[in-house]
Amino acid sequence: MFSFKPALAALAMVSAEPALAQASGEERRRRGEDVMRTLNQGQPQPALEGLRRDFPDLADAITDYALGDVWGRPGLDHRTRQLAAVSAFAALGNQPFLRVHAGYALNLGVSEAELKEIVHLTTVHAGFPRAIEAAQTLGALFAERRAAPGARP
Amino acid sequence: MFSFKPALAALAMVSAEPALAQASGEERRRRGEDVMRTLNQGQPQPALEGLRRDFPDLADAITDYALGDVWGRPGLDHRTRQLAAVSAFAALGNQPFLRVHAGYALNLGVSEAELKEIVHLTTVHAGFPRAIEAAQTLGALFAERRAAPGARP
Amino acid sequence: MFSFKPALAALAMVSAEPALAQASGEERRRRGEDVMRTLNQGQPQPALEGLRRDFPDLADAITDYALGDVWGRPGLDHRTRQLAAVSAFAALGNQPFLRVHAGYALNLGVSEAELKEIVHLTTVHAGFPRAIEAAQTLGALFAERRAAPGARP
Amino acid sequence: MFSFKPALAALAMVSAEPALAQASGEERRRRGEDVMRTLNQGQPQPALEGLRRDFPDLADAITDYALGDVWGRPGLDHRTRQLAAVSAFAALGNQPFLRVHAGYALNLGVSEAELKEIVHLTTVHAGFPRAIEAAQTLGALFAERRAAPGARP
Amino acid sequence: MFSFKPALAALAMVSAEPALAQASGEERRRRGEDVMRTLNQGQPQPALEGLRRDFPDLADAITDYALGDVWGRPGLDHRTRQLAAVSAFAALGNQPFLRVHAGYALNLGVSEAELKEIVHLTTVHAGFPRAIEAAQTLGALFAERRAAPGARP
Amino acid sequence: MFSFKPALAALAMVSAEPALAQASGEERRRRGEDVMRTLNQGQPQPALEGLRRDFPDLADAITDYALGDVWGRPGLDHRTRQLAAVSAFAALGNQPFLRVHAGYALNLGVSEAELKEIVHLTTVHAGFPRAIEAAQTLGALFAERRAAPGARP
Repeated sequence: MFSFKPALAALAMVSAEPALAQASGEERRRRGEDVMRTLNQGQPQPALEGLRRDFPDLADAITDYALGDVWGRPGLDHRTRQLAAVSAFAALGNQPFLRVHAGYALNLGVSEAELKEIVHLTTVHAGFPRAIEAAQTLGALFAERRAAPGARP
Repeated sequence: MFSFKPALAALAMVSAEPALAQASGEERRRRGEDVMRTLNQGQPQPALEGLRRDFPDLADAITDYALGDVWGRPGLDHRTRQLAAVSAFAALGNQPFLRVHAGYALNLGVSEAELKEIVHLTTVHAGFPRAIEAAQTLGALFAERRAAPGARP
Repeated sequence: MFSFKPALAALAMVSAEPALAQASGEERRRRGEDVMRTLNQGQPQPALEGLRRDFPDLADAITDYALGDVWGRPGLDHRTRQLAAVSAFAALGNQPFLRVHAGYALNLGVSEAELKEIVHLTTVHAGFPRAIEAAQTLGALFAERRAAPGARP
Repeated sequence: MFSFKPALAALAMVSAEPALAQASGEERRRRGEDVMRTLNQGQPQPALEGLRRDFPDLADAITDYALGDVWGRPGLDHRTRQLAAVSAFAALGNQPFLRVHAGYALNLGVSEAELKEIVHLTTVHAGFPRAIEAAQTLGALFAERRAAPGARP
Repeated sequence: MFSFKPALAALAMVSAEPALAQASGEERRRRGEDVMRTLNQGQPQPALEGLRRDFPDLADAITDYALGDVWGRPGLDHRTRQLAAVSAFAALGNQPFLRVHAGYALNLGVSEAELKEIVHLTTVHAGFPRAIEAAQTLGALFAERRAAPGARP
Repeated sequence: MFSFKPALAALAMVSAEPALAQASGEERRRRGEDVMRTLNQGQPQPALEGLRRDFPDLADAITDYALGDVWGRPGLDHRTRQLAAVSAFAALGNQPFLRVHAGYALNLGVSEAELKEIVHLTTVHAGFPRAIEAAQTLGALFAERRAAPGARP
């Protein structure tokens, strides 16, 4: 972690993006692991760890590319990115990923009311069934968090 | 516009939402038209007006429900809502609606760089083809706006 | 805006639809509740009521817009509308909503054989997997109704 | 296999359908061609004929299976089947096939107003963008038919 | 019609395919049953047999068209066809059909490693969520096969 | 974290893949460019180059991750990978990407007849409309290649 921050600061002085894109394998891995800790309150993600045994390369691609290269980019704050992900997964009808990203959003301080607004928008973007399914997913997540405030999904 | 603001302020003192949801037909229509002007720099939306001749009821439903009831809600700022829409339409692969909402986002002061970040996220959410198509749509929109800064899509 | 209102007033003289679209909040709510009773044999819809606690605005939008404004329209009989919904949800692969609307169709007197024909069409529209999944959903619904003829889904 | 054949033979005594399913190749072909003439006012379908040169087996599968085995089934009238197809393609966002099947529906006497009702339902099933795109497709089809009443899509 | 038949007759002289497409009902049924035995190690497919009671015509269409006419075609080996099916169902996010076709692929001698490569490609084609879901489906299938090597899905 | 790094180090001793995944930025870039030349007969891909001006980071992610990390993997031959891509894009209804990957497949020696078989399978996986659209895309591609044998799409 400590070695990461100065490197980023140094990059910011020149032109971050080509350098980021061509970061070494170790830097990408470290950046991806940092993003996961930020989103998941310092903990590893159980679904990701579950993949690692049978699909180690896919787990590495998630860490290095999805988390490191993409979610680790500057240029959009973490909250906006999670709201964008929640909106996309609600519209696509992907309940498990909606749940994971709504959980990250709550971890980052997004309110339940803001997540409900995204679901309400989904009635327009993708129809009432998608919005109703998203509401049921969020309702279950909210209930679980209230029942066990310390636990994370 | 002027008659709308005090009504909203009054509603906010009690419990805005059931009242909003049960607004009279005239209030819903006016609120929807206000939202459209806000998003489209004071102008009517050409695609919406094009629908009105053959599909007047659908055009009214767009104004009253989509714009008035949903996009006219408080609880999320216009910018975040447009970024959420851009994320959903990029993931769904709906280029015409991505273009319309990216245009509204630019009208509201969202930067080109922020829209590009949403597209970059789409590689993770929905794959590279969806992201590439979204990038092509945004690239064409940016070029058109640069060529004719006063015109709107 | 000014030139628009008189046009609307003129339309109201020759057509019921603008009046429907601009019904008062109370009328829309009542019409939506009437539609639900017609579809669900006089009973409230459990999934809709389940939403009401956490998502009261979404539950109201379902009643007022989806049921009141859309499903409450004249111009197509309830049976045809349910067959259209069953066809759409079978093609989209949305099993929970296919099940709900197939149940409404049966309540309205659509036969099991007619629903099976829609599923058979789905092999052409959307492929065999979608049709097979829809057949499994309908098979489970038919079995449940035979086992408990008085109960509703 | 042996225990299966007698069961089929028994079914054939009480039901036309297994016989339909096991029709000879010539019967299936003839039935499919009859269905196409019914839907398309006695004319061959240009898109289907266009496929025949490069994809003769696919063209035959369309005639024999899609048109002969499926659309040639009794058990649902042609009008209802076309409305079901229009509803499915509107929800899926498939504009070229929506256009073809809306054309068949008009050929069979379905009214423009009934097709508009299916589009209005689509706002609920699949969201406003899908409904707006379907409305634009139908609007163009209606205009073309009014301009050239004798021509078919 | 008259001008069409001689053309078909001419084709039959130079190509096996029209003959395949116009096979008798009994030949199509037999070919379909042969394909199923090849894919499923000599056993009937439980999901297909489960459909037969309520949806006999759909079960027949699966056997005659999907298995007999399509999967029974020469021109592509069974292995490649199953990899193509696995790729399509992973991209579409259809887990039950991904599982069935991954099982057929393993039965035909495709390796676990090859199936994992298809999943890895899915991160590009359709995004990380689709790939992760496919990996979870394959992981569960592999575990089940290791636990009960004689059983088939 | 500390317990994680030694595990990774151990893996690196027995498997080439973590090394691939953690290749340096320069190696990933070079590998991606090699893959593109292999697929596109030694030429840069016009659509990719078109992206580079407005979306340089996305163009780099395509080269480094999609082409370098994923398409550059050993474990599946290029032909099978292209057939898997063609199958996925046909089922998803993504015509521009179907066309690109069908072109790569032809460049690698896949025959027109093999591509037609994938399209025929699509009638089962995803329905006749998807297959017909894919056939039209391939028909246009085949015609263009015949007209200009030296040119590439």
